Amino acid sequence: MPQPVATRNQTLDKLTLALDSGALVDVRRMLNGLPPAEIAHLLESSPPKFRNILWKMIEGDLEGEVLGELPDDLQAHFLSRMDAAEVASITEGLEDDDIADILQQLPDRVTWEVLNYMDHQDRTRLESVMLYPDEVAGGLMNTDAITIRPSLTLDVVMRYLRRHEEIPEMTDNLIVVNRSDQFIGVLPLRTLLVSDPGVTVREMMITDIDPIPVDMPDDEVARLFERNDWVSAPVVDGSGKLLGRITIDDVVDVIREDADHSFMSMAGLDEEEDTFASVGKAAPKRAVWLGINLITAFIAAAAINMFQDTIDKVVALAVLMPIVASMGGIAGTQTLTVLVRGIAMGQVGRNNQNWLLSREVTIGLLNGLVWAAVVAVAASLWFDDWHIGLIIAAALIINLVTAAFTGAALPLLLTRMNIDPALAGGVVLTTVTDVVGFVSFLGLATLFYA
Amino acid sequence: MPQPVATRNQTLDKLTLALDSGALVDVRRMLNGLPPAEIAHLLESSPPKFRNILWKMIEGDLEGEVLGELPDDLQAHFLSRMDAAEVASITEGLEDDDIADILQQLPDRVTWEVLNYMDHQDRTRLESVMLYPDEVAGGLMNTDAITIRPSLTLDVVMRYLRRHEEIPEMTDNLIVVNRSDQFIGVLPLRTLLVSDPGVTVREMMITDIDPIPVDMPDDEVARLFERNDWVSAPVVDGSGKLLGRITIDDVVDVIREDADHSFMSMAGLDEEEDTFASVGKAAPKRAVWLGINLITAFIAAAAINMFQDTIDKVVALAVLMPIVASMGGIAGTQTLTVLVRGIAMGQVGRNNQNWLLSREVTIGLLNGLVWAAVVAVAASLWFDDWHIGLIIAAALIINLVTAAFTGAALPLLLTRMNIDPALAGGVVLTTVTDVVGFVSFLGLATLFYA
Repeated sequence: MPQPVATRNQTLDKLTLALDSGALVDVRRMLNGLPPAEIAHLLESSPPKFRNILWKMIEGDLEGEVLGELPDDLQAHFLSRMDAAEVASITEGLEDDDIADILQQLPDRVTWEVLNYMDHQDRTRLESVMLYPDEVAGGLMNTDAITIRPSLTLDVVMRYLRRHEEIPEMTDNLIVVNRSDQFIGVLPLRTLLVSDPGVTVREMMITDIDPIPVDMPDDEVARLFERNDWVSAPVVDGSGKLLGRITIDDVVDVIREDADHSFMSMAGLDEEEDTFASVGKAAPKRAVWLGINLITAFIAAAAINMFQDTIDKVVALAVLMPIVASMGGIAGTQTLTVLVRGIAMGQVGRNNQNWLLSREVTIGLLNGLVWAAVVAVAASLWFDDWHIGLIIAAALIINLVTAAFTGAALPLLLTRMNIDPALAGGVVLTTVTDVVGFVSFLGLATLFYA
Repeated sequence: MPQPVATRNQTLDKLTLALDSGALVDVRRMLNGLPPAEIAHLLESSPPKFRNILWKMIEGDLEGEVLGELPDDLQAHFLSRMDAAEVASITEGLEDDDIADILQQLPDRVTWEVLNYMDHQDRTRLESVMLYPDEVAGGLMNTDAITIRPSLTLDVVMRYLRRHEEIPEMTDNLIVVNRSDQFIGVLPLRTLLVSDPGVTVREMMITDIDPIPVDMPDDEVARLFERNDWVSAPVVDGSGKLLGRITIDDVVDVIREDADHSFMSMAGLDEEEDTFASVGKAAPKRAVWLGINLITAFIAAAAINMFQDTIDKVVALAVLMPIVASMGGIAGTQTLTVLVRGIAMGQVGRNNQNWLLSREVTIGLLNGLVWAAVVAVAASLWFDDWHIGLIIAAALIINLVTAAFTGAALPLLLTRMNIDPALAGGVVLTTVTDVVGFVSFLGLATLFYA
């Protein structure tokens, strides 16, 4: 039974308490009473040591489903302790795409061993799904579609369905194919249920749906689902042959990951980043990002270094210079954020990017003028020197316009170069706004005070 | 017919070309050949002037559906030019929750006028949906659920369905209610289609599903859908009476917006931010955020100001000090990002926050030690003074540990105070890492060089 969030945290707290007090029987009972997705959430929300204890308590028949709900790195973690026979047994009954995901976490040798434990039909089906990488339509698809022929009457279709033990979850459409398994159209269950049983599938099917090509990138698949409010959609190969279907539950995961991607990338993190990764796993990844940003910081320092003599004359410059750099960074990040999201949503193209660029520069100039005036007055009063006020005002305007231009042009340029703008954009942007900020401010000051 | 992204941008380009060349007849034809969601995407992806031209070209019978797919601020924009009769006519045939969304963009007076144009039944149904704010279950729900009684046989249910002109989209379950309309359970269509027609609904229905309380926040609703792979779910009031149902297409919008929220908030932007807002709309919002960050920048400047004498003696300090501050900012932002996402995903609770806090501080210390060593050597060589190397190393360690602690503790604290950590976290964090960075570096230098 699903539990609202409040109750979920209480369950978590109760479980922690039980674990702490060593009441392992209670923990086991509570844990196995939860739906698999909740157990997976619990494992994800637990520090590493805890995770292993909890995992051992999960009953055998739940393990596969829980595993299917876990992110890749956690799947790999638990799989590394199993042999091929165990993997084959716990993945039995899962959906093809989930099994394929799990098998992809294993070393190739083990994967083939696991496949050998399966019966021929399962293995053939799985191999067809595993042909495709995770991030295209083929990697999201299941092979559980119910197919029918156009010549059948609806009455026959109904009887055919009744012969099924079970209709797969998320089945909103039956898929109509010809003799060579080529996609022709779909027959929605909602049409089947209200139509005259005597008419044929051909008369009632919908044919103006484009099936999804098996190599379509997953973010495009997600956009199609969003735009068309689909629950499931057929997947075909280059010749139009039906290969399987994609269902909305897997698409929701893609949407969630894609949306997370930009957010995490801006801080140099991965969208699959494990919130509860151990120090040993998290620290090296973070260190790399700090190292990259250290280069940026040294470049900025080198820019300041050129003006040692000027700072030596007017120490107030050292006090004020971070203001120019940081305001540029903030303004540039805003522009970058708007552009990165626009690009991710497929809104930005050749036809509107010039408009965006000029709007951003205009905003940069306007806000530069407004805040330059404020900072000029504040700095003049603080150091009792209106020259320094004018200098910082000019530098601020220069830096905010530069920041706006860079924040807008950079993601467009990076995207064209196939570099992720969310990941690389921030670092390059900060380098530019720091250097331009320091150089314009200290440079103008040098011209004036030298 | 849905179009893949590549083709979509080509359509956009072709449209732009046609518009530029004044070939308005072509534009109109192309535009009205697209599905409503694509037209909405086109409007969203166009600069303001363009939008108004395109909107005028949309055929009357498509206007309502296009409007329903637009974000709130664009709905409000186009609605502001219509009178109540027009609004009533173009919203005819839309889903309840979409109409309710649209009406909420109108001034109250106009909303009531629009409602007066509707027939009694539509009005009553709509009013029941409009009772609830957008961000709870009630605001997401439709009233189009098909309900059945538990005593019916499946055969009777099938005949009852056949009497319907149409079954609402996204109907995967029929909802079972008692005489006083209270929720009892659901009968999946996939069960109905494979079961013996002679058995009763009571025997086949699923009762271990908790219906969604009408006042549940929308992000919790989204989590329930994600965890349980639902296509639709019943909504009930406090007494268990069925009010309507929520479908996955509306939940996907919630997921998309929630995920966008953190990303946009970190740059002080709104998740509903219009990528193509005019300068007049975008500039003031951005200015406010710059103003808030200007305060931060002045606080940092004030911290530096305390050490004017020291900088005057050793100008190299001014060159190196931004390195300490910016490394702290980067490290702190990483921690903040991990925590903000963990909190948004409901992973962080009382039971694991201490573990997280201590892991982050440990990572901060380790990475502080690593990069402090590198910076110490670089700074010593650069300025030929190993004292300055030791001082910057110590300051860097202090600031990275502070950054880790602040980046982890701050979102936990802000969440407890009901302040959005994604929005406020970055500003406070930067203030802390700047001040601690400058004070520790310049402070240690003062102790040594004074």
